Amino acid sequence: MRTAAARDVTAAVRARADIRAGRHTGPTSGLAPGFAQANLVVLPEAYALDFLRFCVRNPGPCPLLDVSGTGNPCPETLAAAADLRSDVPRYRVFADGRCIDEPTDVHRYWRADLVAFLLGCSFTFEWALAAAGVPLAHQRQHTNVPMYVTDRPCVPAGPFHGAMVVSMRPMPPADLARAARVTARFPAMHGAPVHAGDPAALGIADLASPDFGDPVSIADGEIPVFWACGVTPQMAVQRARPPVAIVHAPGHMFITDLPHEHYDTAAPAPRPPGGS
Amino acid sequence: MRTAAARDVTAAVRARADIRAGRHTGPTSGLAPGFAQANLVVLPEAYALDFLRFCVRNPGPCPLLDVSGTGNPCPETLAAAADLRSDVPRYRVFADGRCIDEPTDVHRYWRADLVAFLLGCSFTFEWALAAAGVPLAHQRQHTNVPMYVTDRPCVPAGPFHGAMVVSMRPMPPADLARAARVTARFPAMHGAPVHAGDPAALGIADLASPDFGDPVSIADGEIPVFWACGVTPQMAVQRARPPVAIVHAPGHMFITDLPHEHYDTAAPAPRPPGGS
Repeated sequence: MRTAAARDVTAAVRARADIRAGRHTGPTSGLAPGFAQANLVVLPEAYALDFLRFCVRNPGPCPLLDVSGTGNPCPETLAAAADLRSDVPRYRVFADGRCIDEPTDVHRYWRADLVAFLLGCSFTFEWALAAAGVPLAHQRQHTNVPMYVTDRPCVPAGPFHGAMVVSMRPMPPADLARAARVTARFPAMHGAPVHAGDPAALGIADLASPDFGDPVSIADGEIPVFWACGVTPQMAVQRARPPVAIVHAPGHMFITDLPHEHYDTAAPAPRPPGGS
Repeated sequence: MRTAAARDVTAAVRARADIRAGRHTGPTSGLAPGFAQANLVVLPEAYALDFLRFCVRNPGPCPLLDVSGTGNPCPETLAAAADLRSDVPRYRVFADGRCIDEPTDVHRYWRADLVAFLLGCSFTFEWALAAAGVPLAHQRQHTNVPMYVTDRPCVPAGPFHGAMVVSMRPMPPADLARAARVTARFPAMHGAPVHAGDPAALGIADLASPDFGDPVSIADGEIPVFWACGVTPQMAVQRARPPVAIVHAPGHMFITDLPHEHYDTAAPAPRPPGGS
């Protein structure tokens, strides 16, 4: 159910205030527990329609949560009091596809023609996996999740194109069905795995050499399980080479006012009247 | 899982060929069984970005399945050989928010600046409800599902705004949890119910007088169950009064090449290697 209920958003508001004031400039993992975090992509309006097409055509890696009004730095349905120019701990600013800055505030790059896109982030499904008792190797090993560029092309849209990027979490085969069932409940957070087992089936040559993040050790008897990853749209944006693009720095996400459960398609349904 | 498998799409292709040739001009209920059908909205590109914002901000009533390239009448990810100017049995054409024609082909209204949006349709979740043994009153009574304008405002975007429209299916309270669980698996087809029980909670005064469709009789002991409805975006489009808009006529949907299961978030997940 996506209906909104009155809810205490103090923890999310406080975390964003700390970030805005420069008191927190690191990764957001563990900040404001219970609240969904989101990937940020900011583009000139001239690119917005094609980027939206790219996201709609590739919903696994690019699940859309909100799109701001042109020039409006507030993602109103995710956090009505937020300012996307200051409320992400660290940004990456691109000019013509080249990273030119990694600031903690992007007021000076903001333009009246910019549109902000918020996309689902795997932190939400990792929370659900942990809640379901599926252990996560990269958390146990205190590293970033490993990510790989696959040989599966995304459906292109205008200047946006490229391969799907996946994240990988190893687990015993006995955990796979449960992990798939749990993450499938969160289609707005990348949903169920796209593949389990042989990495060559995705064109991945060497699990020990991820394209992003850190390698994790895979225990005897474990298999690698792959999910569509939010780095996919960032790579497509770099390839499109817009005059300006702003994204969050890896791991430095936008914290929303919405709890993880908001995106759980299996969350409690309406109850019959009469309390029966 | 949204991965595509090789699949026999003959029935969908044949149904669209019949429609294109004018051999079928009626509603599409029951045509090409097993294939997902979609709502159609066509707008000038100048309205496309705001309409996409409206859909992203209101995913319950407005689940996006695909967006065509500007001027391109093909929804490539849903049916690569289709032509949206001819492959819907009947259209409604609006000028400045007023219906000016209900043709079976819209070649003469097509313009190079038009963008087509395909949105999820409840036919898919009705198929899933039937498969799960939840009987549907309007099918038993051979009428259209009743639809009501609620007092719940959608999140606006540019000129697009208005209340959420819901469809209603009565059932015994004992069926509610199952119906909610089954439809929740299809977030791209409106997902779980938004409400069950007292219609006044949605601002609906009289179930016997639906705003669209036909009334259904509600048996003793049954309760009304309400789902977000694809008429919502059509009403928002009429209110926005674009110079031209083309939508499908009620019940006359676009038939895709994708099976209902494609949109089932609980569809079978990857299996562990080795066939275990």
